[in-house]
Amino acid sequence: MAIMVQKYGGSSVATPAHIKRVAGHIARSREQYDRLVVVVSAMGDTTDDLLDLARQISGRPSPRELDMLISTGEQQSSALLVMALQEIGCPAISLTGAQSGISSSNVHTRAEILAIDPSRVVKELDEGKVVVVAGFQGVNGNGDITTLGRGGSDISAVALAVALGAPVCEIYTDVEGVFTSDPRIVKNARRLDEISYEEMLELASLGAKVLHPRAVEFAQKFNVTLHVRSSFTWAEGTLVKGVDELENKRVVSGVACDLNTAKAVIMGVPDRPGVAQKVFAALAEANINIDMIIQSMMRDGRNDIAFTVERSALPEAIEIMERVARELGAEGVAHDAGVAKVSIVGAGMVSHPGTAATMFGALADAGINIEMISTSEIKISCLIQEADAQKAMQAIHERFHLDA
Amino acid sequence: MAIMVQKYGGSSVATPAHIKRVAGHIARSREQYDRLVVVVSAMGDTTDDLLDLARQISGRPSPRELDMLISTGEQQSSALLVMALQEIGCPAISLTGAQSGISSSNVHTRAEILAIDPSRVVKELDEGKVVVVAGFQGVNGNGDITTLGRGGSDISAVALAVALGAPVCEIYTDVEGVFTSDPRIVKNARRLDEISYEEMLELASLGAKVLHPRAVEFAQKFNVTLHVRSSFTWAEGTLVKGVDELENKRVVSGVACDLNTAKAVIMGVPDRPGVAQKVFAALAEANINIDMIIQSMMRDGRNDIAFTVERSALPEAIEIMERVARELGAEGVAHDAGVAKVSIVGAGMVSHPGTAATMFGALADAGINIEMISTSEIKISCLIQEADAQKAMQAIHERFHLDA
Repeated sequence: MAIMVQKYGGSSVATPAHIKRVAGHIARSREQYDRLVVVVSAMGDTTDDLLDLARQISGRPSPRELDMLISTGEQQSSALLVMALQEIGCPAISLTGAQSGISSSNVHTRAEILAIDPSRVVKELDEGKVVVVAGFQGVNGNGDITTLGRGGSDISAVALAVALGAPVCEIYTDVEGVFTSDPRIVKNARRLDEISYEEMLELASLGAKVLHPRAVEFAQKFNVTLHVRSSFTWAEGTLVKGVDELENKRVVSGVACDLNTAKAVIMGVPDRPGVAQKVFAALAEANINIDMIIQSMMRDGRNDIAFTVERSALPEAIEIMERVARELGAEGVAHDAGVAKVSIVGAGMVSHPGTAATMFGALADAGINIEMISTSEIKISCLIQEADAQKAMQAIHERFHLDA
Repeated sequence: MAIMVQKYGGSSVATPAHIKRVAGHIARSREQYDRLVVVVSAMGDTTDDLLDLARQISGRPSPRELDMLISTGEQQSSALLVMALQEIGCPAISLTGAQSGISSSNVHTRAEILAIDPSRVVKELDEGKVVVVAGFQGVNGNGDITTLGRGGSDISAVALAVALGAPVCEIYTDVEGVFTSDPRIVKNARRLDEISYEEMLELASLGAKVLHPRAVEFAQKFNVTLHVRSSFTWAEGTLVKGVDELENKRVVSGVACDLNTAKAVIMGVPDRPGVAQKVFAALAEANINIDMIIQSMMRDGRNDIAFTVERSALPEAIEIMERVARELGAEGVAHDAGVAKVSIVGAGMVSHPGTAATMFGALADAGINIEMISTSEIKISCLIQEADAQKAMQAIHERFHLDA
C-alpha cells in the first residue's frame, strides 16, 4: 500500500492540454502508488484574473469575500483534472478544501491549517479513486472558505502528506528542481540531487522562488521529504530532506541573489545606550522588516547605523528615519535602492572556516566592493551594487566549483 | 420586519460595472426591506465558458465534476456583489448553496431542492447583513456540490422565499416583464401588469423564455408572488400570482410562438383498436415527447395519425414510425419540420366560448392555413407553416386588442 501526495502548480495545469498531460502522468504514477492524492493550483493566471475583477469593484475588498472568490480557481482546476483522469479510464474524484477536512484558522487570505480530518479522502482512496484536492484552501470554524496565502497549495500538499502518513510529497512545477543558482543568470548552474530543509529555507528567503518557506518549514517539522520536479520533462528533480539524511553535506549548495532590497543609513548618531533600540523600534512599529544591520565604528562620539529593507518599504522607512534622526540629533539620513544581496548557502559551511574568505576573495578578484556582510550557520550574504550582481554570482559559482 | 428575496440573472451582473449598479439598487431596496436576501447567477457567459473548458477535456464529463466546476460561477459573482455592497457601506455576506443550507437530491446537473435549513441565512440577517446566496446550487447527502439545472437560480430564489416566509420574490432580468407577445416579433406588444401562474406556465412552455417552468410551479405550490422586472430600467414589471388574486382575468393574456416543433404523420393506418397505442408506446420507449395529436377521419377503413415533436427528435421519431408503419401495414410516413405552433393563453378563456372562433377567424382573414389544433382550459394552439408565424402572431395580437 504505497501512498504518494503530488502537487501540481498553476503553470503545470495552465490549459486543457496541460491538464491532459498531467492526467497521463498521474495515471502512470498509479502503477507505482496504489493510493494517490493530488493537490492542484489554479490554472495559469486564474487567481490574478480574479483579483483583478475584485479590484475593479473595490479598492479594499473584504478578506472573507476575497477568499470566497479566489478559492474558485482551485475548485475549477481540480474538477477539470478529474474529468481528464476519468476520460483516460482512471477513477478519480475532486474535493474542495472543506470536503478534504482541512480546518484552518480564521485569518482570511493567509489562514493556517489547524487540523486535517482525512476521513473523506481515505474513504475515496479505499474505493480505488485518485483524490484530487483543491489546493490553497481550507474551512474555518464558521464554515467559511479560507485561503492559505502565497505558496498555499504547497502547504495543502505537505499537510495532506502528514495527515495520510505519506513519507514523500512530489511538488511538480515548471523547473527541473532546485539549482546551484538561477540558470537564467549564472552559466552552468546545475540541478541539485538533494538539499536540506535548512538550506532550502535560506534559498527560498533569498529569492529562489521554487518552494514557499512555510511549506518547507511544515515539511521539516513533520519530516516529509519534498521532491521538487518538472511537469514538463517529468525527470527526477531535487529531494528536500533532513540534513542528517543527506548523502553528502556540501560546503556550499547554492548561490542566490535578492534584488528586492535597499540600503538605508542614519548617519552621525550620538553614541548613547538605547539609540539603536530607538531607531529599530520606530521601524518595527510601522511593520517594516529589517534584514542586514551594521553599526559602524565610532568616530567623534558618533556612529553610522546602516540596514537593509525591502525596496517597497524604503520610502516609509526613510520618512521614519528622518523623524528619528531629528529626535536623536543625528547628522542625517542616506539611502541606496540600487543594491543587491548575494548569498551562499550550505549545510557544511559551519565546519569549514575558510568559506567566507573564499567568497570575499571571489568578489575581490572580480573587482566588486562589499558594502555589508551578514552570516548565519549555513549562509553568508554580501550587499553589493545591483549592477555587479550577475558578475558576482558567476564569480562565486565558479570559485566554489558548483558547476562540477 | 419586511423581508424580500431578489434574484439577479447573469445579464444583470455581466461586468463589474453591472455589479456595481445592482449593488446600488440593493442598497436602495434596504430602505424598504430590512431583511434582504439576494440570489445571484453567474456573470454573463461564465457558465458557458466553463462548460467549454470541460468539453475541451472530455466529451462526456462526469455530472458530479461538472457541478464542481460550474458552481464556481455563482460563487464568484456572489463574492463580487458583496464586495460592491461593502464598498458603498452596505453590510453584506456571500454564502454558497451549502452554506445557505440548501439540501438537494443526488442527481447532479439537475438536482431538486429537498429542504432548506435557513439558520445561517437567518443569523446573518439578524446581524443586519444583506445575504447574497450563490444561485443554481445545493449540496447533497454526501456533502457534494450539486446544480439545479436550467433556471436553477430562479428556483433557488423561490425556495429561499418559501423557507424565509417572504411573500414576494423579485426576479431581475434584462427584459421589463412578461409581454403580451415577443416584442421583437409583434409590433405593439405590451407589458402585462400581472399574470397567473397557470398562464405563465403555458407561456414558458410555449417559448417565452422569461421564467423557467420549474420555478413558476414552485412559486405556485407555495403561493409566492413573483415580480419579473428589469435590472436595466428598474421599472415596475409583471406580477405572477394566483389566478384568484388577479385584479382582472383577461380572456387572452398573450400570444406565443414555438418554432422548436415538427410535424410527423403516419398515413393509412388500418382502423383497428390498439393501433394508436402501438404508435405512441414505441415513441415513448425512446423518450420522445409528443405534443399535439390528431387522428383524421377514417376513409376506406384507414386513418392518418399526425402529431408534433421537438425538431431535434424528428429524425429518431421518423425511424421509429417507419418501423411501426411496416408492422401495422400502414401506407407510409410523412413529415414537415417547417412548421410553427402559435398559441393564445388566458385565464378568462374558459368562460368565453367564442375565443377559439375569434383566433381561427384572425388566421383565416390573414390567409393562413391551420394544420392542427389543440386546446386546454387556458390555451389554444394552432400549428401553421413557419413562414406564416410572424404574420399570424401580429394578426391574433391585433384581433384580441392586446396592444390596448
